[in-house]
Amino acid sequence: MEPSTALEIVATSGRCSRTATAAGADRIEACEALELGGITPGPEVLDDILEHRPALGVHALLRSRPGDFHYEDAELRVMERQARRLARSGVDGLVLGALDAGGAVDLEAVARMAAAGLEVNPELEITMHRAIDASADPVASVTQLLALGIHRVLTSGGRDAAGEGLEVIARMAQAAAGRIQIMAGGGMRAQDIGPARGAGAAAVHFSAKTHYAGTIRVSEQQVRQLRSTLNALTK
Amino acid sequence: MEPSTALEIVATSGRCSRTATAAGADRIEACEALELGGITPGPEVLDDILEHRPALGVHALLRSRPGDFHYEDAELRVMERQARRLARSGVDGLVLGALDAGGAVDLEAVARMAAAGLEVNPELEITMHRAIDASADPVASVTQLLALGIHRVLTSGGRDAAGEGLEVIARMAQAAAGRIQIMAGGGMRAQDIGPARGAGAAAVHFSAKTHYAGTIRVSEQQVRQLRSTLNALTK
Repeated sequence: MEPSTALEIVATSGRCSRTATAAGADRIEACEALELGGITPGPEVLDDILEHRPALGVHALLRSRPGDFHYEDAELRVMERQARRLARSGVDGLVLGALDAGGAVDLEAVARMAAAGLEVNPELEITMHRAIDASADPVASVTQLLALGIHRVLTSGGRDAAGEGLEVIARMAQAAAGRIQIMAGGGMRAQDIGPARGAGAAAVHFSAKTHYAGTIRVSEQQVRQLRSTLNALTK
Repeated sequence: MEPSTALEIVATSGRCSRTATAAGADRIEACEALELGGITPGPEVLDDILEHRPALGVHALLRSRPGDFHYEDAELRVMERQARRLARSGVDGLVLGALDAGGAVDLEAVARMAAAGLEVNPELEITMHRAIDASADPVASVTQLLALGIHRVLTSGGRDAAGEGLEVIARMAQAAAGRIQIMAGGGMRAQDIGPARGAGAAAVHFSAKTHYAGTIRVSEQQVRQLRSTLNALTK
């Protein structure tokens, strides 16, 4: 029997996490300002999201500002404080990332942010986000991350859309050697799910966006379609 | 002697509030995701901003999501919780706004959000933000707001840029009759400051943006120029 594949959906409100959970999401990534790629959710929005928690829980994005992933020390200190607050709030994981000035993964910064959360809750899962796709060499980055004991990498294989990065995703999965889970995401379409699984992705990540009142909400219809696609592939 | 005019600058980090304060800002508006018009700052970013507080203090934006200003009850409940947290954190004021489905100011929603903050700190100043410029009739909206006892309205006179809305700003100032302060802002340029004062604005609001690393920072040079312009007008 083939292993099942987790479906992660991004939510920016309690309404969105409820919609996604009811439509078949396995895990929620919580953030605000998804229009900018997401930033760390504040306590009130996060509490609202945590009211609707699917089977694999709610993971919170840790990103203090939009823009690049090269952070000053003051920004890292803000994110360490955010990590502790997110951990105290009862999230199941943190989604974080940082690059150094040369475009390599900033292992020290990643370790600092993860440690701040894990101090509060040692059970937290740590996911490296798509900063890895902006890194100079995503496959080498996976090898470097092995030493840190993180659980998961969210990646589009270094491309804008995961459907175009499948070859790199396969090499990243090989480098991860089962010690880091590969989650495919970023510009994904339902038809990319099968190939992404074939490339070694154990989870898929979608924002399943619909535009409403000038902002972004989760589309129930899109999440249902993604759930059906996954169910058809894993039955 | 002519009264002086307050210079408010938007900050999204401690770095930005320090830059703005050193360059001559009188007041800081704190928010995150300024690229989206700003949303409520989280506690860690806000604490970072509060370390650099100019003479007239730090006012925090209360806006739980980007997009329009017509809120569901669940969103208003999130913003009431945010208002209490912002008040507890030691801000000097809240900047908020809401419209009803018909495009009029939602007086009940505005009153609910303001009351949540004022419960915690009765000294808070309440500013109605540029939701008023999206309202059907900004001048009539000022008249409606008189009953709520709010302190200030941030407005571009119903236009995209305050420089084009001066005539409406003057009518809003007349409607406010000295009981609500008019702060001109939104697409303002230094050369609009004099005419905005002439129209009755007692304060001016700028984001004084510069782009850095894919996000927005305060430009020290722009704030210094705005300060000089104001000083020349008020000396």
